[in-house]
Amino acid sequence: MTKRPVITLLTDFGTKDHYVAAMKGSVLSVCPEAQLVDVTHQVQPYVFCEAAYLLSQMWCDFPLGTIHIVVVDPGVGSGRRPILVETGGHYFVGPDNGVFGMVLEGRLDWSARHITVESYFRAEVSRTFHGRDLFAPVAGHLAAGVPAAEFGGAVTDLVFPASLTPTQSADGGWRGVVLHVDRFGNIVTNLPWKDFGILATQPFEMRVGNLTTHQYYPTYSSAGSENTFLLRGSGGYVEASLNQRDAAKAANVHAGSPLEFRFKASD
Amino acid sequence: MTKRPVITLLTDFGTKDHYVAAMKGSVLSVCPEAQLVDVTHQVQPYVFCEAAYLLSQMWCDFPLGTIHIVVVDPGVGSGRRPILVETGGHYFVGPDNGVFGMVLEGRLDWSARHITVESYFRAEVSRTFHGRDLFAPVAGHLAAGVPAAEFGGAVTDLVFPASLTPTQSADGGWRGVVLHVDRFGNIVTNLPWKDFGILATQPFEMRVGNLTTHQYYPTYSSAGSENTFLLRGSGGYVEASLNQRDAAKAANVHAGSPLEFRFKASD
Amino acid sequence: MTKRPVITLLTDFGTKDHYVAAMKGSVLSVCPEAQLVDVTHQVQPYVFCEAAYLLSQMWCDFPLGTIHIVVVDPGVGSGRRPILVETGGHYFVGPDNGVFGMVLEGRLDWSARHITVESYFRAEVSRTFHGRDLFAPVAGHLAAGVPAAEFGGAVTDLVFPASLTPTQSADGGWRGVVLHVDRFGNIVTNLPWKDFGILATQPFEMRVGNLTTHQYYPTYSSAGSENTFLLRGSGGYVEASLNQRDAAKAANVHAGSPLEFRFKASD
Repeated sequence: MTKRPVITLLTDFGTKDHYVAAMKGSVLSVCPEAQLVDVTHQVQPYVFCEAAYLLSQMWCDFPLGTIHIVVVDPGVGSGRRPILVETGGHYFVGPDNGVFGMVLEGRLDWSARHITVESYFRAEVSRTFHGRDLFAPVAGHLAAGVPAAEFGGAVTDLVFPASLTPTQSADGGWRGVVLHVDRFGNIVTNLPWKDFGILATQPFEMRVGNLTTHQYYPTYSSAGSENTFLLRGSGGYVEASLNQRDAAKAANVHAGSPLEFRFKASD
Repeated sequence: MTKRPVITLLTDFGTKDHYVAAMKGSVLSVCPEAQLVDVTHQVQPYVFCEAAYLLSQMWCDFPLGTIHIVVVDPGVGSGRRPILVETGGHYFVGPDNGVFGMVLEGRLDWSARHITVESYFRAEVSRTFHGRDLFAPVAGHLAAGVPAAEFGGAVTDLVFPASLTPTQSADGGWRGVVLHVDRFGNIVTNLPWKDFGILATQPFEMRVGNLTTHQYYPTYSSAGSENTFLLRGSGGYVEASLNQRDAAKAANVHAGSPLEFRFKASD
Repeated sequence: MTKRPVITLLTDFGTKDHYVAAMKGSVLSVCPEAQLVDVTHQVQPYVFCEAAYLLSQMWCDFPLGTIHIVVVDPGVGSGRRPILVETGGHYFVGPDNGVFGMVLEGRLDWSARHITVESYFRAEVSRTFHGRDLFAPVAGHLAAGVPAAEFGGAVTDLVFPASLTPTQSADGGWRGVVLHVDRFGNIVTNLPWKDFGILATQPFEMRVGNLTTHQYYPTYSSAGSENTFLLRGSGGYVEASLNQRDAAKAANVHAGSPLEFRFKASD
């Protein structure tokens, strides 16, 4: 731990309400020395796979010992478990619904706790605002030096939702989802480039919302001006883009929207 | 005071201009150790009652000694007083126009100062940017340890605008305002649930913008899909909502818009 | 240097992606004590003159020793130089493309370094994300106490793009650009009031996007309700405004859009 433990916050709370500030107050009430960093609060409401993607893209850039709070939590108030995960020298606090799935994918060196020890929670815990009442104070106590094992018993059966990865249909096609729409409207899919990169040289069809494309370009700047095309995104996934235009708006999709992909026989 | 005094900022300055950063620079020039937390800067311009509502919802979540700066200040440059209020172990700095009215409502244990001692202001004070030139440096000096009494004389006649609470008409109906529109478009009214909660069991009519409703539902999820309905908001006020849609957009209202409510004779 | 060196961030990265957080993680990995302050991340993509304007409006409000990182960098991956500039007791880190031009304008007391010493960069430097891989870690090392001279050799031939200042045509008219659109839609031009303020008393014509105006008003509140007018903006430049409406939307312009201005013979 440094003297100024870093805590990042990634939520779907937006920035016009008081919810993020309430979470920060809750952290600082426990650990006033914490260094708070917003990742984004504009995750598509309830779309945990967008949070999983964004977290996977930036956690490594933070110092060892950083605590990442993720609250995209459609199951709050139901039985889903609050968890604390350790891996790679970082801590992750949030609901057990897959938000940490893309960080943990392919890693063996993780451990997790089911957060149950209520003495680390806010005095009054609401049914709907675990960000403020549970996740923030737990992160604060962790930052203040409480060992991870104090928050609850070890668990190994974390939720890894099938929707994080594409699934194959009986006819050989693939069903995936939109992981993220970036500020330019580029559509980040959950098709990993390492598996689907052969689309650069093989005929394919992808449908997402109103758009269908058969085109690949290596870069934004090499694309023609009219049609949707696919490229290798900087995050390691297939992206769909429209030159100089907002592809997600044209397709009428957002994070969480379904998509279909198939390779086609060469003509 | 902790070694890292917490200062929150709540304004109507938006986030695409340099105004909030200028305020933060002004705080840090006086107190580089301050821990700065944004509440939101998306308050509807000049609508002080929205700031009053948001502040009332989160100040308690911060540690004792926190300083809350609120700048929603249509009267800047006119005669309105800059004030420093203490209550519940917290400090509040901003214009005397009602922004602290919902924090202070029902509390007896507060004291206030009219901020007048110019040696704590920025060297040059503009007519239009008291956020940077007066409120931020005063908060900085307070955070750095200057006692509240140093900033000016005690006052007790703070402004409590009638518009913070609903008012009754001669015909028995109520006039209120929209306090806040949340990120989903839910309309938070200034009708306190403790007074108006009997609408759950009594016929009523509420008009706000283009919408009229006679319907109550206990939760979002129990609502039908077509019409506006009222429910008990998490902040303790009556809210108007449209299932899965943006109620404020449908009604064409924003924070500060008027509304009318009346109980009706049972059929 | 204070014990909590202040680092500001000004970019065109937006707030819905993970890029700003990645930059902050990169700073904190080098200097966990840094105090990070966002200026804005909503600069019009690639429009360096908007960043130059916003920076010029707020850097002075920060304490001596502050480090300002500016990343509006259309030339990333090409030959443009990364630079570190010192002036007025502040540090500036970013691309050599004019983003510091309005801070340096009229100052003689500056020095600059071409940042070349790779041991201060991220272990892996991408072709497209110098914000995270180069500017952020350099700012972190500077904040941690590395002297400016360690980052590379002195340079004096910084880029000062012609587009920062208006240029005169053969026919006596002036061509300028929109520097910034504020949250209310007011259009900040690059016509300095000290040079163009005589428009208050002399006939003129300005065209910007769809709008043409011949009108000056001293304040927003003195303006008529229908037409575009010019006034003296608080930042020292001519602004175009529409009473109670979004002038930039009406004109269909954004930061970086061209404009034309000419004085006319008195009637």
